[in-house]
Amino acid sequence: MTDKKTWSDRFEGSLHPAIARFNASIGFDIELIEHDLTGSIAHARMLAYTGILTREEADRLVEGLEQIRQEYRAGQFNPGIDQEDVHFAVEHRLTELVGDAGKKLHTARSRNDQVGTDVRLYLREQIDNIRQEIRDFQRVLVDLAENNVETLIPGYTHLQRAQPVSLAHHLLAYFQMAERDYQRLGEIRARVNISPLGCGALAGTTFPIDRHYSANLLGFERVYNNSLDGVSDRDFAIEFLAAASLIMVHLSRLAEEIILWASQEFSFVSLTDSCATGSSIMPQKKNPDVPELVRGKTGRVFGHLQALLTLMKGLPLAYNKDLQEDKEALFDAVNTVRVSLEAMTILLAEGMQFRTERLAAAVSEDFSNATDVADYLAAKGVPFREAYNLVGKVVKTSLAAGKLLKDLTLEEWRSLHPAFEEDIYEAITPRQVVAARNSYGGTGFEQVRSALASAKTILQTD
Amino acid sequence: MTDKKTWSDRFEGSLHPAIARFNASIGFDIELIEHDLTGSIAHARMLAYTGILTREEADRLVEGLEQIRQEYRAGQFNPGIDQEDVHFAVEHRLTELVGDAGKKLHTARSRNDQVGTDVRLYLREQIDNIRQEIRDFQRVLVDLAENNVETLIPGYTHLQRAQPVSLAHHLLAYFQMAERDYQRLGEIRARVNISPLGCGALAGTTFPIDRHYSANLLGFERVYNNSLDGVSDRDFAIEFLAAASLIMVHLSRLAEEIILWASQEFSFVSLTDSCATGSSIMPQKKNPDVPELVRGKTGRVFGHLQALLTLMKGLPLAYNKDLQEDKEALFDAVNTVRVSLEAMTILLAEGMQFRTERLAAAVSEDFSNATDVADYLAAKGVPFREAYNLVGKVVKTSLAAGKLLKDLTLEEWRSLHPAFEEDIYEAITPRQVVAARNSYGGTGFEQVRSALASAKTILQTD
Amino acid sequence: MTDKKTWSDRFEGSLHPAIARFNASIGFDIELIEHDLTGSIAHARMLAYTGILTREEADRLVEGLEQIRQEYRAGQFNPGIDQEDVHFAVEHRLTELVGDAGKKLHTARSRNDQVGTDVRLYLREQIDNIRQEIRDFQRVLVDLAENNVETLIPGYTHLQRAQPVSLAHHLLAYFQMAERDYQRLGEIRARVNISPLGCGALAGTTFPIDRHYSANLLGFERVYNNSLDGVSDRDFAIEFLAAASLIMVHLSRLAEEIILWASQEFSFVSLTDSCATGSSIMPQKKNPDVPELVRGKTGRVFGHLQALLTLMKGLPLAYNKDLQEDKEALFDAVNTVRVSLEAMTILLAEGMQFRTERLAAAVSEDFSNATDVADYLAAKGVPFREAYNLVGKVVKTSLAAGKLLKDLTLEEWRSLHPAFEEDIYEAITPRQVVAARNSYGGTGFEQVRSALASAKTILQTD
Amino acid sequence: MTDKKTWSDRFEGSLHPAIARFNASIGFDIELIEHDLTGSIAHARMLAYTGILTREEADRLVEGLEQIRQEYRAGQFNPGIDQEDVHFAVEHRLTELVGDAGKKLHTARSRNDQVGTDVRLYLREQIDNIRQEIRDFQRVLVDLAENNVETLIPGYTHLQRAQPVSLAHHLLAYFQMAERDYQRLGEIRARVNISPLGCGALAGTTFPIDRHYSANLLGFERVYNNSLDGVSDRDFAIEFLAAASLIMVHLSRLAEEIILWASQEFSFVSLTDSCATGSSIMPQKKNPDVPELVRGKTGRVFGHLQALLTLMKGLPLAYNKDLQEDKEALFDAVNTVRVSLEAMTILLAEGMQFRTERLAAAVSEDFSNATDVADYLAAKGVPFREAYNLVGKVVKTSLAAGKLLKDLTLEEWRSLHPAFEEDIYEAITPRQVVAARNSYGGTGFEQVRSALASAKTILQTD
Repeated sequence: MTDKKTWSDRFEGSLHPAIARFNASIGFDIELIEHDLTGSIAHARMLAYTGILTREEADRLVEGLEQIRQEYRAGQFNPGIDQEDVHFAVEHRLTELVGDAGKKLHTARSRNDQVGTDVRLYLREQIDNIRQEIRDFQRVLVDLAENNVETLIPGYTHLQRAQPVSLAHHLLAYFQMAERDYQRLGEIRARVNISPLGCGALAGTTFPIDRHYSANLLGFERVYNNSLDGVSDRDFAIEFLAAASLIMVHLSRLAEEIILWASQEFSFVSLTDSCATGSSIMPQKKNPDVPELVRGKTGRVFGHLQALLTLMKGLPLAYNKDLQEDKEALFDAVNTVRVSLEAMTILLAEGMQFRTERLAAAVSEDFSNATDVADYLAAKGVPFREAYNLVGKVVKTSLAAGKLLKDLTLEEWRSLHPAFEEDIYEAITPRQVVAARNSYGGTGFEQVRSALASAKTILQTD
Repeated sequence: MTDKKTWSDRFEGSLHPAIARFNASIGFDIELIEHDLTGSIAHARMLAYTGILTREEADRLVEGLEQIRQEYRAGQFNPGIDQEDVHFAVEHRLTELVGDAGKKLHTARSRNDQVGTDVRLYLREQIDNIRQEIRDFQRVLVDLAENNVETLIPGYTHLQRAQPVSLAHHLLAYFQMAERDYQRLGEIRARVNISPLGCGALAGTTFPIDRHYSANLLGFERVYNNSLDGVSDRDFAIEFLAAASLIMVHLSRLAEEIILWASQEFSFVSLTDSCATGSSIMPQKKNPDVPELVRGKTGRVFGHLQALLTLMKGLPLAYNKDLQEDKEALFDAVNTVRVSLEAMTILLAEGMQFRTERLAAAVSEDFSNATDVADYLAAKGVPFREAYNLVGKVVKTSLAAGKLLKDLTLEEWRSLHPAFEEDIYEAITPRQVVAARNSYGGTGFEQVRSALASAKTILQTD
Repeated sequence: MTDKKTWSDRFEGSLHPAIARFNASIGFDIELIEHDLTGSIAHARMLAYTGILTREEADRLVEGLEQIRQEYRAGQFNPGIDQEDVHFAVEHRLTELVGDAGKKLHTARSRNDQVGTDVRLYLREQIDNIRQEIRDFQRVLVDLAENNVETLIPGYTHLQRAQPVSLAHHLLAYFQMAERDYQRLGEIRARVNISPLGCGALAGTTFPIDRHYSANLLGFERVYNNSLDGVSDRDFAIEFLAAASLIMVHLSRLAEEIILWASQEFSFVSLTDSCATGSSIMPQKKNPDVPELVRGKTGRVFGHLQALLTLMKGLPLAYNKDLQEDKEALFDAVNTVRVSLEAMTILLAEGMQFRTERLAAAVSEDFSNATDVADYLAAKGVPFREAYNLVGKVVKTSLAAGKLLKDLTLEEWRSLHPAFEEDIYEAITPRQVVAARNSYGGTGFEQVRSALASAKTILQTD
Repeated sequence: MTDKKTWSDRFEGSLHPAIARFNASIGFDIELIEHDLTGSIAHARMLAYTGILTREEADRLVEGLEQIRQEYRAGQFNPGIDQEDVHFAVEHRLTELVGDAGKKLHTARSRNDQVGTDVRLYLREQIDNIRQEIRDFQRVLVDLAENNVETLIPGYTHLQRAQPVSLAHHLLAYFQMAERDYQRLGEIRARVNISPLGCGALAGTTFPIDRHYSANLLGFERVYNNSLDGVSDRDFAIEFLAAASLIMVHLSRLAEEIILWASQEFSFVSLTDSCATGSSIMPQKKNPDVPELVRGKTGRVFGHLQALLTLMKGLPLAYNKDLQEDKEALFDAVNTVRVSLEAMTILLAEGMQFRTERLAAAVSEDFSNATDVADYLAAKGVPFREAYNLVGKVVKTSLAAGKLLKDLTLEEWRSLHPAFEEDIYEAITPRQVVAARNSYGGTGFEQVRSALASAKTILQTD
């Protein structure tokens, strides 16, 4: 039989030991302890401010709570299953340390609003960490882009070569995705940063508390307007998991590309030893483990999102014990996103090198300049759909003849359509093909330089 | 064998008929036709504005496109599988109507940026519709709340009676959830409302287009800064599906509560005939089909979210055909959210009635005033945890004796603790228990009236 | 206001029209009509067999039901929203056709067991269809494998070339996956093929029915043993969706490989015109739309699985209206799996050709024979880990020198380790490398031929 | 910089420390260590059996491996990040213990087939554990049912009272669900219990191994027929997660019912102190934490299923590092299912008591005998639909008059329809209503007794 619980005076029997283990959250909610202490300190200060406790009582509580923080950091605070959760563990130790005052800390508060406060403080901090790591990731992309404005790489649709692009342009597409991630997390942060403290168990409290005072001490921007909503809302966690899923989508796309690029068939990048691993049996192998793992971890975050949506579906108001299950999913998603961002940033910074000679060869060996021929004709007044069809034919015959478009004679061009002139050859060189796509947001070098400048401004002004 | 395709001049053979059916999206993307026409009109105008087409050509195109719109609305435009998708179907009909000019419409554009434009126009409109429906839903909640500020209802945690609350307070918790939904959709709308038009297939275009001009005609606030990102970004669809999932979470919670309330055991509401259905075999049945279906539809939207996340994971840049699969999920989620919001709004407005006599009885028959006794003592200086334990004991003995707290004599109270006085009886009446929770955001009547006023302000200023 | 409902005599008011639309399932459950008619015929026959109805009544019912079937097939039976669902629509029409007897059909039955019967008949048939399509898919794989036992293709791990393999061996890996799919569906079929008919609304019936009789008429192998379970069980649908998800996983893996193989970088296959499509703007493009769409449709089926799991979570016994939402997910998953299997089968059969010259070149140009060198040494007594490390070194120096292993002189080999002899050259030719992996289930030609024979036996004996 | 890796001789630089942490799986795959040792022992014995190693070498290896097992069990084997994974950690320690022989263990094996072996051994064992726990759960259900054959409880559809049922019948519905879970896991076990050992990295091996020999030592029933499939198949893990999800669906349904039953409104069960917990603030609370947590954990398992499906989607053959991410999801799902089954079994066995007086009252106070009146008439020849409509009317008028059906006079019955006779009163008593549903699988007491006998037979013969 387990120890006496905080709530046991209405209870006669003890909890079945297996059930005690099953119910306890101390195994994972200990991760919240510093936020729990911080929240309790603010609560204690508020109780004194409003006269519910005396200043002396509050000081004793704060002192005790800070001592527990020191004990925790020193590895000396290790509550077990009998403490049920981090809140009871702290209250129990606090009462040992400061006596009766400890029994007053829970005045005008419930674990329901308390844990809501803790989780929000935790997530607010982690969102800030992740946003910082997004900035690091973007910085590496910009550095790489800066060195590769005029490096050409095949651009693909359907994984078929479509039109060559600037490598910088390609990399900056990921900058844009990351920028949305950054912005999105900022918006979510505002919905995380709302205080439920003082919502009580579900209905508020009979004590004359000042919720704005404690919220202010904790850096919350607002307080929940409805106590039932305050203790049962987990939108913010789900929103975060959706945003985290999108971060993983973006990283998984880049990961997929790097895996392709590192294959012998593409050979667009070499992996350096600091970010690749070998095989236990095939001595020649050098494997792109980092992007593979990032890709593999993507589903994990999707799964946590699905878990929390499922959790919340159909839960009646207000707090239900089911909500205890929100934490491990959240913690693991935070951790997964953070290590994935960090690993991809390192990989880009020092784990791979673009093989520029191979890239240069790649953009010269295919028909990815065919659109430019159609555009050439359309610019001379041939209806686009007609021009397109003409070029379709010439691609077909060239393929059969083993030729590329640059190999056609001017006569051959003119037999296709009289509008062709000598300048067709210049128009279809890879460099010109890229440079010419100078529409806003396009891959033309001017556009890319301008996009690079904007990206740097964003990173600097942040 | 199927008809000749728009893209077939590079092709010799025809598409296998089963493959043609498999590939075709016309069966569902026809839903986008009006947005496709609107987008094409803006594109045509931009081509004239920039001198790529003549004013006359653009006028002919616009005229033809508007004629197709009329034909469609009249039920006379019904393209089949052979047209592959809505874009080719329109271009094909347009060329029939206006001749060679029709073949020029696709200048400086690709289906990749075109469909991206269509979907964003569609979703922008639907977000506006849904936000309006959220407002309708909130309005009904506020109306109901206004009539029930002093109606008491048991408040639950763990589906155990916890503390009684104002029914208005309970309803306004859903107002708050809906308010977050409204706000969130507003933020997502800003990320939907960005124009990809002019991103071309992936790399921009060689023509001197003006993307801001066409974006402006279409009411877009910004344009995509990176063409690769512009054609392959589906973040906005996933963000919408996540927000839609949260709307369904909220509706499912209310649905669950109404199902409980309508059970014989709770009997908190009666269903009216306009929103309930019967059984095929049990003549006495009156079933809460509306909330059950809403609850049941929740997983459907979660599923679409998962589908799109899975779709996007690991896709290399830029466009891939997989993206065609984004539409049905999106359309169905939009439809599901809209009909669910509408049905719940009707249900609240005219489909159920609160049984106030039953609610009044409910809040008088339990121990949900026990916290108030503990608070009573704590307010007199007894450490909260001690007070709590004392009350735990008295609940246990009262339960055994078949008594409620209000049935205890003053002596019994005093034998528990000498601090009790006559005013304990008033302190634990349901009405006082509710009124006393007057902390900010609590269920105290003053707080609820103030929350109601804020809610009405939101609805009015919108 | 809508028409009078079958269940309306306990009801006074009419259903709100929007709610009528919201509730109605006739829009999609009409897909079950033939199964509904078949089920009703068996029910009618059972009622006569047990004496609950007269033989004449049953005959009239069967005649009426068969007439509705003819009307439906002729396109003349088109019930609208007012009929609520396919069951009421049929009963209504039946009563028009046969009078009072029609009102007796629902004796000893409820829509709850009726729809359960319909869905199981539907799914049983579709499982049989899908299993047949799996066999077709396997047949094409075997045909392709038979022609390519000695065609070599690089084998990959981490998308890095690892060891060359027989192309037949590679294709037969998919045969094995499909074989598991086939087997799994067989097991699920047994759990689908159980009759709930006669479970009534939830509790059985007071009439002396014979559930085994009707089950037998309908080809069910067993009947549900518990009526509450019989009307509320949807395990079979979820099991099917899980199996369907695995089919899509397998197809998506093959799809991914074909997309890679069709890229210019791999160039392992050419797409034929009958299974590829073009671009609206890039005249040279030939896109692998089929495998892309199959890959894209994968998440769709995962989503339906998630939707049904979410649907069922936490539903109290017995029937709840939420269950109505099982159908569209199931229907769409069935359809998606079927068209995906069909499209991939066509693609393999006639949509692509392996470029054998390119494959032959590929297996000669890398270090994927390095394991064989380590094995060579290990076979001569060098501890494997030592041999592995030696070969790791030689790969590193060869790479630096721009050489392949076959380019090393015997002296160079011997300076590495004295155990090397002339036969090392033969041991590392691609053909020998493949042939030598003759362990059971390996890629050695003997093994592959034996696997091919087994596969053909499976297809023949089925 | 981290220590030298096993695979590092082809590598010059060291792994970046953050990347080493990111890649390492030792933090969680240590859970597989006993299976890894067992698998290695079988591999060593096979190498000796086939003459690839000497008997002495194999003996030394086995001895070393067993010593590591002892060290692990004694808490003395704690490999760190530098060991990368459990396989390298074991090989490294083994080589310390037995010298050169240790370097020969990995002959004819790769980590790809090795980890596949480990995971299957783990899952096979866990499936057996879970099946045993399902049996325990079923046993408690049968015990409860045995004591409650004639205890009546309202039966619900749409959470509306439909028809009363035997409590035993209700409980046995869950027995049936659990029986499907048991059967399903048995089928999956057969697909888990297949040996990939000897598939090598992907293609088999050049050594003359005997895969059936090692498979036999490890208790595998079959071996994988295709090496590429053998190292990349994770169907079995996904199948298990789908089956685990269904177990959680079933437990969540029962959990939901217990939460309802324990509410004050239902009051069908009392929670005992050994399985309930209190509130931190509301002294009267007794919360059904166990079923709430079980319900809450359901989404967690769904999430893991989704994670693995996402993981596998579109992975090219053969092994990819992504597969490393299969383990934590699997381990957590196994653990979640096990503790949930255990907790629910304890809850049923000793955590709750049915309040039979309350149940008896409940079945007497409503119209859930209405179907019986319709059946009564139908049995006398009134067409069922007419009888149903008549009863609908009488329910409506009785409700208005505040009467139940048993309160109607015989005259009132006869004014409804002349076929009513005195025996109508007996026909509608709750006991008779239940007893009369004696169709196969129905709630009639005879049927329930027979179902109970079958259930006991299943439990005994197992």
